[in-house]
Amino acid sequence: MGLQFGILVFPNVQQLDLTGPYEVFASTPGAQVHLIWKDRSPLTASTGLALTPTTTFADCPELDVLCVPGGAGVNPLMEDETVLAFLRERAPGVRYLTSVCTGSLVLGAAGLLKGRKATSHWAAHDLLGSFGAIPTKGRVVRDGNLITAGGVTSGIDFGLTVVAELLGPEAAQLIQLSLEYAPTPPFSAGTPDEAPAEIVQLARERMKGSRAAREEIVARIT
Amino acid sequence: MGLQFGILVFPNVQQLDLTGPYEVFASTPGAQVHLIWKDRSPLTASTGLALTPTTTFADCPELDVLCVPGGAGVNPLMEDETVLAFLRERAPGVRYLTSVCTGSLVLGAAGLLKGRKATSHWAAHDLLGSFGAIPTKGRVVRDGNLITAGGVTSGIDFGLTVVAELLGPEAAQLIQLSLEYAPTPPFSAGTPDEAPAEIVQLARERMKGSRAAREEIVARIT
Repeated sequence: MGLQFGILVFPNVQQLDLTGPYEVFASTPGAQVHLIWKDRSPLTASTGLALTPTTTFADCPELDVLCVPGGAGVNPLMEDETVLAFLRERAPGVRYLTSVCTGSLVLGAAGLLKGRKATSHWAAHDLLGSFGAIPTKGRVVRDGNLITAGGVTSGIDFGLTVVAELLGPEAAQLIQLSLEYAPTPPFSAGTPDEAPAEIVQLARERMKGSRAAREEIVARIT
Repeated sequence: MGLQFGILVFPNVQQLDLTGPYEVFASTPGAQVHLIWKDRSPLTASTGLALTPTTTFADCPELDVLCVPGGAGVNPLMEDETVLAFLRERAPGVRYLTSVCTGSLVLGAAGLLKGRKATSHWAAHDLLGSFGAIPTKGRVVRDGNLITAGGVTSGIDFGLTVVAELLGPEAAQLIQLSLEYAPTPPFSAGTPDEAPAEIVQLARERMKGSRAAREEIVARIT
């Protein structure tokens, strides 16, 4: 049997957090990528894309890699006992426990980041400390079998890193070439350090509501 | 009404060709992103992800941007008169006619690339000449209102370029920051020029079957 990748899918997931690593994982020969949720009804990502779970918490096979993506939908997940129980139950059995973007907050809420280095989307990075994690800058941060990625598009760098760990660098390079991953962003604005100050301020303003709600939840559960 | 983006979706589409630009387009305020196909039944991308069209060729509203992604499923599309007729009918009315990856072969088959500069996935780039296009290297290639992107992940660079054209560079930078798009590929293997020679050879071998089928179709229809 090929490698078994499991990615949590949930209402208001940031779809590119999920679809980036999905494409990398699914490009490994013989791999299966499972989208895991409570049931198999289609659900809607934060930007409107319909996604359909392929398995449930109850039916999910043993996994080599378990990945939690992020997005606006992370807020309710941090207090969702069914989700947290699934993560706690599966974490000891996987080869790599992973997250992309604010998915790390859900791992934190499940108590799986204590004393471990982890990263998250830049706008949520500081919240990791509340869960006892060691907030660590980096697009892909590794601590033992825990691999966490930064915001959204870092999921592609992350996916290639995980494949290289599992199957060696050649396997990852072959996928990188097939996906023509030689990125050339048209602007230099991908992090708060690089982006113009007024763009960073605008981004923070847009995220204010979601950030306040997130802070409130984190304060309540930690 | 916000910007109307239409992305063709079809069986065996390469999902990241679609989901990359989708996330960028859908992040513009007020935008609608339509996934267009013959009917609204869910279909399966080349790596197994279920995708659900949101509109049909008949019902699709007027579009600002029409985008054709690529993937293995492009082969039958090049001879699908329903698809080609839709593209020919809509091309004159859109602000930008676009493609990601081998989606440009479908634009070519529809006769929409004659005398125009265009790009494609590196493994299909040379086929563009058969459609009367001017094959042009580049991750994002622009010729008038035609904007074509290279393989798969170039769809993110492409999406930001299109948003900058439509709404200005600040809008694109804001999205780039929100998606934390400061890519750091773990290897330098994203193009045949950068990748180790044995990886390029392996990639070409893996694509041999699909490439041969594609050559045969292109020879037949041009």
